[in-house]
Amino acid sequence: MAKQEDNFKNVISHAKEYGFIFPSSEIYDGLSAVYDYAQNGAELKKNIREYWWKSMVQMHENIVGIDAAIFMHPTTWKASGHVDAFNDPLIDNKDSKKRYRADVLIEDYAEKLNQKAQKEIDKARERFGDAFDEAQYVTTNPRVMEYKAKQREILERMARSLGNEDLADVKALIEELEIACPESGSRNWTEVRQFNLMFGTKLGASADSAMDLYLRPETAQGIFVNFLNVQKSGRMKIPFGIAQTGKAFRNEIVARQFIFRMREFEQMEMQFFVKPGEEMKWYDYWKETRLKWHLSLGLGRENYRFHDHEKLAHYANAAADIEFNFPFGFKELEGIHSRTDFDLKAHEQFSGKKLQYFDTEENKNYVPYVVETSVGLDRMFLAVFANSLTEETLEDGSTRTVLRLPSVLAPTKAAILPLVKKDGLPEISRKIVEELKWDFNVAYDEKDAVGRRYRRQDALGTPFCITVDHQTIEDETVTIRHRDSMQQDRVKISELRDIIANDVSMRNWLMKM
Amino acid sequence: MAKQEDNFKNVISHAKEYGFIFPSSEIYDGLSAVYDYAQNGAELKKNIREYWWKSMVQMHENIVGIDAAIFMHPTTWKASGHVDAFNDPLIDNKDSKKRYRADVLIEDYAEKLNQKAQKEIDKARERFGDAFDEAQYVTTNPRVMEYKAKQREILERMARSLGNEDLADVKALIEELEIACPESGSRNWTEVRQFNLMFGTKLGASADSAMDLYLRPETAQGIFVNFLNVQKSGRMKIPFGIAQTGKAFRNEIVARQFIFRMREFEQMEMQFFVKPGEEMKWYDYWKETRLKWHLSLGLGRENYRFHDHEKLAHYANAAADIEFNFPFGFKELEGIHSRTDFDLKAHEQFSGKKLQYFDTEENKNYVPYVVETSVGLDRMFLAVFANSLTEETLEDGSTRTVLRLPSVLAPTKAAILPLVKKDGLPEISRKIVEELKWDFNVAYDEKDAVGRRYRRQDALGTPFCITVDHQTIEDETVTIRHRDSMQQDRVKISELRDIIANDVSMRNWLMKM
Repeated sequence: MAKQEDNFKNVISHAKEYGFIFPSSEIYDGLSAVYDYAQNGAELKKNIREYWWKSMVQMHENIVGIDAAIFMHPTTWKASGHVDAFNDPLIDNKDSKKRYRADVLIEDYAEKLNQKAQKEIDKARERFGDAFDEAQYVTTNPRVMEYKAKQREILERMARSLGNEDLADVKALIEELEIACPESGSRNWTEVRQFNLMFGTKLGASADSAMDLYLRPETAQGIFVNFLNVQKSGRMKIPFGIAQTGKAFRNEIVARQFIFRMREFEQMEMQFFVKPGEEMKWYDYWKETRLKWHLSLGLGRENYRFHDHEKLAHYANAAADIEFNFPFGFKELEGIHSRTDFDLKAHEQFSGKKLQYFDTEENKNYVPYVVETSVGLDRMFLAVFANSLTEETLEDGSTRTVLRLPSVLAPTKAAILPLVKKDGLPEISRKIVEELKWDFNVAYDEKDAVGRRYRRQDALGTPFCITVDHQTIEDETVTIRHRDSMQQDRVKISELRDIIANDVSMRNWLMKM
Repeated sequence: MAKQEDNFKNVISHAKEYGFIFPSSEIYDGLSAVYDYAQNGAELKKNIREYWWKSMVQMHENIVGIDAAIFMHPTTWKASGHVDAFNDPLIDNKDSKKRYRADVLIEDYAEKLNQKAQKEIDKARERFGDAFDEAQYVTTNPRVMEYKAKQREILERMARSLGNEDLADVKALIEELEIACPESGSRNWTEVRQFNLMFGTKLGASADSAMDLYLRPETAQGIFVNFLNVQKSGRMKIPFGIAQTGKAFRNEIVARQFIFRMREFEQMEMQFFVKPGEEMKWYDYWKETRLKWHLSLGLGRENYRFHDHEKLAHYANAAADIEFNFPFGFKELEGIHSRTDFDLKAHEQFSGKKLQYFDTEENKNYVPYVVETSVGLDRMFLAVFANSLTEETLEDGSTRTVLRLPSVLAPTKAAILPLVKKDGLPEISRKIVEELKWDFNVAYDEKDAVGRRYRRQDALGTPFCITVDHQTIEDETVTIRHRDSMQQDRVKISELRDIIANDVSMRNWLMKM
C-alpha cells in the first residue's frame, strides 16, 4: 500500500515536471480538483481522443459523431432525472463547520469494521501458517463473523434509507454508530439533506427572462435530444450510433485522486440505437468491442477486468464497467450500459414531441432502445500515463525513467539530436526536422550531452531519438534509437519517414483490435 | 440587401437540412443563441481545429499547445480586468419590462440618420444619372450634411460618456433623442447600469467554503497563468508561443447572426512571448502569417481585409482584425493584438509571484511582451461554410447546389456508390469502403438513382464520388467524379487511396501557405 502511494505521488510529480499536467491556476495556489493539461499532456490527451474517435466514428459506417453545446435547455435535466435525483446526501458538523457526504462517513465506518476483521484473519494466518484455511475461518470465528455481519447490516440499512429518501434514518444511523467529525472530534451534527451535483448559472440579463441553466453533468443527453434530427438528416438506419466527446461538470463534494475524479472532466460517449429486444445482443457486442479497443494499446490484459453491476441505475436493464488497475487499485475506466428507452421516452414526455423511428423492414414506429459506451478521457489519460511510467535498472547499475507510452499516443514522435553543436550537425538536424514536421510532431534538442538528451526523451515518452553525427555528413545516415529497447540502428535519412510512420500510425494500431 | 438576407437564410437552412448545425435542444424549442454541431458539422469543425493546430503547433518548433480548464481561480478575472470592466451598459423599459443595451439603442438611432442620408443620395443619383458625383454631393447638400453631422455627434458623445463611465449622460442622450422602446413605444426608461458578461457559478457545497467561479470569457488567461510552468518544464526560449483551443462563454444580451455571436463559443488562440521592444516586429509577422493561413484555404483573397483598430483596448499597443466577407458583410474573423506585458504584470501583482523570463543572451530577467492571434472557431466555420455554399445553373438549365468546401476540411472525403443494388456491385463497393476507411472518412450510399446520390454528396461537400459499375467486375476500375468540375475519370481501384490522399492531405494544403 505504501509502495502504491509512492508510485502515485511519483506519477503526479512526473506529470508536472515533464509538462503533462499542472494544477489549475497554480499561481493563485490552485483550484481544488481542477487541472490543466500542459504542453505534452495536451498532445497526449488529443491523441487519445483522436484514437477513440477514429475507431468509433471513422471505422463504423453506422456511427456518426456530433458536438452538442454544454448549455442545454433546462427541461432536459428534468426529463433525464438529474434535477430530482442527481444528489449527494450531505451533513454538517456544527462545531468544525465542515461538511461531509453522509454516505461516505458511514462507508468509512463500515470499512473500519472490515479492516478489524482482516486484522483477525491476518493474525490467525500467522499463527497457523500453511495449515490456515481462510474460507473456513471467516465462517466460524465469532469475532470475524460479528465484524462482517455488523458491516453488512450498516451498509444495508444505509442503502435502504437512501433508497427510501429517509434522510432522518441516515442521520440516526450516524448517531447510533457514534461517528465523530474527523476534524473536531464532535458528534454535533446537522440534519442530512440532499445536495444537487449540477453547477447552475443564469442565462440572459433581463429580469423577467433570465433562465436558470446547468452545466451539463453528462454528454449523453446532448445525443438524445438530437437523436431524431441526426437520424433524419443523416438517413440513418437502425442499428446506428451517435458519438460525442466533450466536457461535463459535477460539483463533487469529495473530488480526489488527481485527474481521476475532477469537477470538470471530459467524456467520450457513444449511444447505440437498436430495435427493442435486441439490446442484450448489442450490449454484449459493445462490452467485447470496447475491451478490445483498450487492449489494442498494449497496457496488459491483466490490468483490465469487467465489473457487472448488481444494483442498476433507474434507466438501465444491464450495466458493466471496464475497470483498470490504477495506482490506487482497480476502478472504473469505462461504463457500458443498456439504457433501455428510458431517456428517449422521458424526452417525449417532457417535450410533447415524438422521438420515434420508423422501421421500414418492420413497417412500424418505435422508440429505440439504447446501449451506451462511456469512457472518461481524463481517466484514460491517467491509465495510460501511470501504466507507462517505469523505472528500470540498467546493466551498469544506474536507473532509467521511461514513459513507455503506446507510440501512437506519444506527444512527440521523434527527437532530432545533433551529436555536437558544431561542424554543421545542427544544420543537418534542422533540415531533418523541417522534413519530418509535415507528418509528425517532432522536437529538436541540442542542449547537454547526448546521453542526457536520450534520458530526457525517455521521460517524455518519445519513441525515437534520431542522432546526427559526423558520419551523417559522409553518407546521409543517422542513428535511430528505440525508446524501450534502447537499441540503435544506422539508417538512411530518406528511410526515417517510413520507419516512424509504420510505428506510430493509428491505422496500424487499430488493426491490432 | 434582400438578396444577402436570402443567402443567409439559405445558409442556415442548408446547415440544418444536411446535418451540419441544429438549434440546441430543439425539441424544447431551442435555447437562444446556442447551437449544436450535427454529424457533418462536427467533422467540419474538427477538421478546421486540426488544420489550425497543425499549422500553429506541429509546424512551429517554438510553439507548444496546452489545454487549460474552463474553471479558473476567480482572482484570474480580477487581474485580467474582466470583473471590473467586462460590462455592457443596460437599460430597462418600465412599461414593456424589456431590457436593452443602451449603446445599441443609440447606435440604431444613429444608423437611421445614416439611412436617411443614403436615401437622399440614392434619389439624387436617380435624378442626375451618369453625371452624379457622390463625393461632391455629400459635402455640399445641406440635408445630407446635417444627417451625417448629427450621426457623428451622437456616436462621439456616446463613446465619450461610456469612456468616462458617465452612465447618467448615456441615459440623458436616450431621452434627448426621444428613443422609444421598440416593443411598447414608451419612453419610460430606468437608469443605465453596467451588467457583467461573465457567467457565474458556485464551486463546492460547504457553506463556509463555497467559491464564486466564472466560466472563462476567453481562453487567453489560461495561457498566461501557465506561462512560467510551460516555459520551465518545456525549456522554452524566447521568442516562443503557447497555443490553445477551447470553449469560452459570454452572457451576451444581444446574441445573433446564427453561430457568429453565440453565448458559448470556441476560440483558437496563440500567445507569442517576445522580448520587450520586439513586439511590433512580431505583430507584423503574425498579421501576415495568419492571413496566409486563411488564404491557403482558397476562399478568395477579395473576401479578406485588415481592419486596424484606432481605439485600443486597455492592454494593447497595436491591434488589427482580419475581417471576412460574411453573408451579412465584412466582420471580424480573427484578431491580432499586441498585448504588451499587461496580463503577465497584472498576474504578478495579484498573485504576488514573479512571472519573469531569464534571458541567457541578455543575462537578465524581464516580463515578456505578448502578441496574440485569436480566431473564433465557430466564425471560421461560418466563413468556410457560407462561402462554399453555391447554386449553379448547368448546361441543361437545371440548378445544382454544391458545397465547395476546401477538400482538406470536408467531413466526408469520398462516397462509394454501386451503380445498381444488384449483380454484386454493393459487395464490391463495400470492399472499397473497408479499404479506404482506415485512412479517410468515407460514406456508402446505395439508395436512389445515382444522379440523385451525386447531388446529395455535392450538397454535403464530398470531394469525390466513386461509382462501381458492371465494368468494375471485369477490370477492377471505377469512375471517380470530382465534385466541383463534375468530371469523371476511369481509374483502377488500387489508385484510389493515392488520388484521394493527394487531394485532401493537410500536408499538401499547408504547403500552399
